[in-house]
Amino acid sequence: MGEFKHFVIVKFKEGVAVEDLTKGMEKLVSDIDAVKSCEWGQDIESLDMLRQGFTHAFLMTFSKKEDFVAFQSHPNHVEFSATFSAAIEKIVVLDFSSTLVKKAPPA
Amino acid sequence: MGEFKHFVIVKFKEGVAVEDLTKGMEKLVSDIDAVKSCEWGQDIESLDMLRQGFTHAFLMTFSKKEDFVAFQSHPNHVEFSATFSAAIEKIVVLDFSSTLVKKAPPA
Repeated sequence: MGEFKHFVIVKFKEGVAVEDLTKGMEKLVSDIDAVKSCEWGQDIESLDMLRQGFTHAFLMTFSKKEDFVAFQSHPNHVEFSATFSAAIEKIVVLDFSSTLVKKAPPA
Repeated sequence: MGEFKHFVIVKFKEGVAVEDLTKGMEKLVSDIDAVKSCEWGQDIESLDMLRQGFTHAFLMTFSKKEDFVAFQSHPNHVEFSATFSAAIEKIVVLDFSSTLVKKAPPA
């Protein structure tokens, strides 16, 4: 079994201070050991038709599902989620065990 | 600037042989050097409300945007995309330069 992933894509409401949210997320994942790695990005590349209005992706990686479960119920995450939820117009979340089909060569 | 990500989430049409598609994708990314790494998963975890009907996520990583552009126009990818597109009921694609906010510790 591979790593466990928590993938979130969102469209933020107009006028939302996205930088405040990404900084809050940065602090959140730094403070919680269960999060193995975290990255995010804003799509400014793909076709509107394919993007479906979504603008931002957040990808978190956990060593195992139990770590994700611990993260989800962590008080800091619960608090952050409330702030985050208030800022979004739409969201899709996918949580899953990852199958690695091509591994990056050692850095 | 971080790595470049090609992130695809889909809901497949009913009756589609998903395993054939994931095997095709595995061959595709193995054959094309521009793809640095690739992983995928099927969500059987998150709430239906958050999942919005989407079932599968595919995440490809490239060292730089130019590698992604090369991948997109590669004949094998063009051919695979036609097969893949025929199998999906809905899709969201996000392409973006990734900002790493928490780095995994060395394995």
